[in-house]
Amino acid sequence: MQDKPKLILASHSPRRAALLRQTGFDFEIIASTVDEAGCRETDPVRHVLALSALKAQAVRANVKEALVIGADTIVSTSGMILGKPGSREESCAMLERLSGRSHEVYTGLTLIGECGDQVSGHEMTKVHFRKLDPWEIRDYVNSREPLDKAGAYGIQGRAALFVDRIEGCYFNVVGFPLSRFFQLLETLWPPGKIRMAMGLGEGTDE
Amino acid sequence: MQDKPKLILASHSPRRAALLRQTGFDFEIIASTVDEAGCRETDPVRHVLALSALKAQAVRANVKEALVIGADTIVSTSGMILGKPGSREESCAMLERLSGRSHEVYTGLTLIGECGDQVSGHEMTKVHFRKLDPWEIRDYVNSREPLDKAGAYGIQGRAALFVDRIEGCYFNVVGFPLSRFFQLLETLWPPGKIRMAMGLGEGTDE
Repeated sequence: MQDKPKLILASHSPRRAALLRQTGFDFEIIASTVDEAGCRETDPVRHVLALSALKAQAVRANVKEALVIGADTIVSTSGMILGKPGSREESCAMLERLSGRSHEVYTGLTLIGECGDQVSGHEMTKVHFRKLDPWEIRDYVNSREPLDKAGAYGIQGRAALFVDRIEGCYFNVVGFPLSRFFQLLETLWPPGKIRMAMGLGEGTDE
Repeated sequence: MQDKPKLILASHSPRRAALLRQTGFDFEIIASTVDEAGCRETDPVRHVLALSALKAQAVRANVKEALVIGADTIVSTSGMILGKPGSREESCAMLERLSGRSHEVYTGLTLIGECGDQVSGHEMTKVHFRKLDPWEIRDYVNSREPLDKAGAYGIQGRAALFVDRIEGCYFNVVGFPLSRFFQLLETLWPPGKIRMAMGLGEGTDE
């Protein structure tokens, strides 16, 4: 019998951890200390790929016997990247900008295997907000939910009411594109090893 | 100060209740005893609208001082409606049918207000499954997650890994299209009353 393979999520986001847990994976969390604001890349895809790689590499530097997962998510609208709002006023301004129109959410993923092999991928989802009433924006900002979230909203919280349609991967909007992750993982690990990490039996490859 | 408005969800689905709770609404659950299998309607939209209305009306018959919400969700592929699988074999067959292609999820919603006014609406979301490995289907069926779910999967559970993209409302796929619900509610209740039901202040309409 093999040792159970080890996965490390290089992120302190409770939403990412909840998604990975939901699909049965057993993993450890070691958040990286990469400064997100230090990334000057203005192209959304290059931005999330660069930051996800930096986060994975930072954690990988201290841990060898595990596969490390780095992720970065941003919201982009009309060519402008929206990060986490710094104040109530900034939250209001971001939500007014998103109201009644579509924006894009990008997540970059980087996986570094035990031998140092590195794979990256990204996901883009179009998200459409219905036209919000001013009281909805005010109440939502008062709830303080926007403050730690790119684009000033969390689709898995109260802002679920704002989103009338999306095109693409839903879990990408929450911050961790599960299906893309699985496909990247398949390039580094055989099925038996993936099944073991998911707590499914002894890992026999059939 | 007005009495707090009352909402009743006419459904025993824990997933619907969790979604409605997530957005801050306070409500009661009174499941209807409508026999879903008794609906012979083969058009998906008419099917979910008819059943959501029957469920709301059944509960409404016993409760007057509240707004009642009925909902029904089905999965449809190539003109065939997939209900809840009856066995492991049926679960496997449904998942094989969904693997590597798109299907549609429909939810009908019916709201009956305190005065008896009734509004209905529906939502359709296209869901695409990536091509599944046989071991993924086998493991998923062994988890018993498919058994109580239309189409034999739950996007909010382990099957999240199977879905690579959707077009439309995500919450519809879970079983309760939140944004559509809010828009229907706005036709029956003024903003101040909605805010009270969401636990947001005294319900002053501004």
